[in-house]
Amino acid sequence: MRIDNLQYANWSEKIFRQMREGGVDAVHVTIAYHENFRETVLNVEQWNRWFETYPDLIFHGKWASDVDLAISSNRTAVFFGFQNPSPIEDDIGLVEIWHALGARFMQLTYNNQSLLATGCYEAHDAGITRMGKQVIKEMNRVGLVVDMSHSADKSTIEAAEYSTRPIAITHANPYEWMPALRNKRHDVIKAVTDNGGMIGFSLYPHHLKNKSDCTLESFCQMVADTASKYGIDRIGIGTDLCQDQPDSVVEWMRVGRWSKEIDYGEGSAAAPGFPAMPEWFNDNRDFNNIEQGLRAVGMNDSEVSAFMGGNWYRFYAENFIAA
Amino acid sequence: MRIDNLQYANWSEKIFRQMREGGVDAVHVTIAYHENFRETVLNVEQWNRWFETYPDLIFHGKWASDVDLAISSNRTAVFFGFQNPSPIEDDIGLVEIWHALGARFMQLTYNNQSLLATGCYEAHDAGITRMGKQVIKEMNRVGLVVDMSHSADKSTIEAAEYSTRPIAITHANPYEWMPALRNKRHDVIKAVTDNGGMIGFSLYPHHLKNKSDCTLESFCQMVADTASKYGIDRIGIGTDLCQDQPDSVVEWMRVGRWSKEIDYGEGSAAAPGFPAMPEWFNDNRDFNNIEQGLRAVGMNDSEVSAFMGGNWYRFYAENFIAA
Repeated sequence: MRIDNLQYANWSEKIFRQMREGGVDAVHVTIAYHENFRETVLNVEQWNRWFETYPDLIFHGKWASDVDLAISSNRTAVFFGFQNPSPIEDDIGLVEIWHALGARFMQLTYNNQSLLATGCYEAHDAGITRMGKQVIKEMNRVGLVVDMSHSADKSTIEAAEYSTRPIAITHANPYEWMPALRNKRHDVIKAVTDNGGMIGFSLYPHHLKNKSDCTLESFCQMVADTASKYGIDRIGIGTDLCQDQPDSVVEWMRVGRWSKEIDYGEGSAAAPGFPAMPEWFNDNRDFNNIEQGLRAVGMNDSEVSAFMGGNWYRFYAENFIAA
Repeated sequence: MRIDNLQYANWSEKIFRQMREGGVDAVHVTIAYHENFRETVLNVEQWNRWFETYPDLIFHGKWASDVDLAISSNRTAVFFGFQNPSPIEDDIGLVEIWHALGARFMQLTYNNQSLLATGCYEAHDAGITRMGKQVIKEMNRVGLVVDMSHSADKSTIEAAEYSTRPIAITHANPYEWMPALRNKRHDVIKAVTDNGGMIGFSLYPHHLKNKSDCTLESFCQMVADTASKYGIDRIGIGTDLCQDQPDSVVEWMRVGRWSKEIDYGEGSAAAPGFPAMPEWFNDNRDFNNIEQGLRAVGMNDSEVSAFMGGNWYRFYAENFIAA
């Protein structure tokens, strides 16, 4: 079983076929960065068109059992998530609406302060807001998972403690391995995993040691080390693969409509676009490389299997249903 | 089994309890008259609050099997529908979005010309529009039932013929019995029922012979006569009960935001508000009166049972699922 718990590709039949070639049984896709409610609904409509057009390759995944269905029907189950709470605007009632429409993960922040919590790029982290507490409670009730990948440390730790159900960092790596602003410090990973949550490891080059030059061995050793530290059942994949996206999309991710000035995020004026992927992971067909790399650093079959999909499967089964 | 396939009450715990007292296992409620997409979502949010507040009385019905669940758990399953296509605005993609949010019936028009068809109050009936044909096809695909209760004759007949799945007139009576503009002529009922569709009989006084003074016997004889003419399996209930609504609501139904001038619809300047209900049907506790009245005009147990809920149950089972 293979589950990639974060991608934002420029979707096409080519990529859907590559997911089949790479044996990706389920993928959590981002359907909103800065979109408001109506705009995110338009993104669902686009996905519905893809589901209708490519029924032999993909379908809308809503429950863990859909991963089983994907395996038995040789397709990829596509689960929806948001990297920002913008799709609920200022309306807590939209949490349940979104769960009914199939959303399963929602980040409380995307880099900036939101109505709910503080993003990892803010100077001051005020923690979970008044509305944030109400929304976490409602997300817990309906089965929409709190994702803190782009949140600041205090906000993340508070979310892990306040939430009555496990939360996730769907796509980031340990800060100790690669000190990027988006990677997570020990206390943060510990708070999330101690409360039953999971971290999905990212292959976005800005999150990798030596970025695009990161070696497969270094990545896999980091996986094994993190497993030893926090538990083999607390980790999974969240590649953050943004395949075939034009550089205009990374700009949209970074500034949306919140700034008239460009913000380079993890990039720079000299390198504003998407960085090159490491040579051992270019697209969905390369998950075998990771499996081999994990075995090479000493992980056994059951550990590799848990990391490649089994853990997210269990997490889906426990956290997508209503409380 | 009792199914009322159209109500628009001023919902309250009192009414939810009356539905239990009256043995109403399922009710199709209107959640939009003139509301746009976002406004209708707000109405769903309001229903979600009621479902959360009164879980022992009501729950959101989505499939025929939810009627069974309602019976076994002694609750009322609430199914959503629209009296106007305004919730899909000009976007065919919203048909599938609405089905995911639980909408199961949508009128193509409410009295006036819509983007899809012609309403029963227009001077000229142009039939199903270009967009109307596309939307019927999409409704057929996803399992959203075409409802022509407030549509003009030609539009209704064309919809019945163009639709590949049965359509419904959820709330109206035969024009021959009571010549109200909203009641349906023979050709219209025939087109709908010949194509597997159903008509739900209304208890809205403007649709009744002698209006508020209509006798139970006259209503029940009309039911028996219609059964003889079009088939006992083509008929059901759609009371159009608007219990506890202030007169401002009937004004909203009639003019929405489409006119600055008042339009009295089936009322008049002298009697602009909701008319009084017939004394034998005031609220959800009075369905026994109808059952007794049907037996008094000679309908047998199996016929009464089909009319009171069995037919709508079969219709739900066949028409709410994707094609």
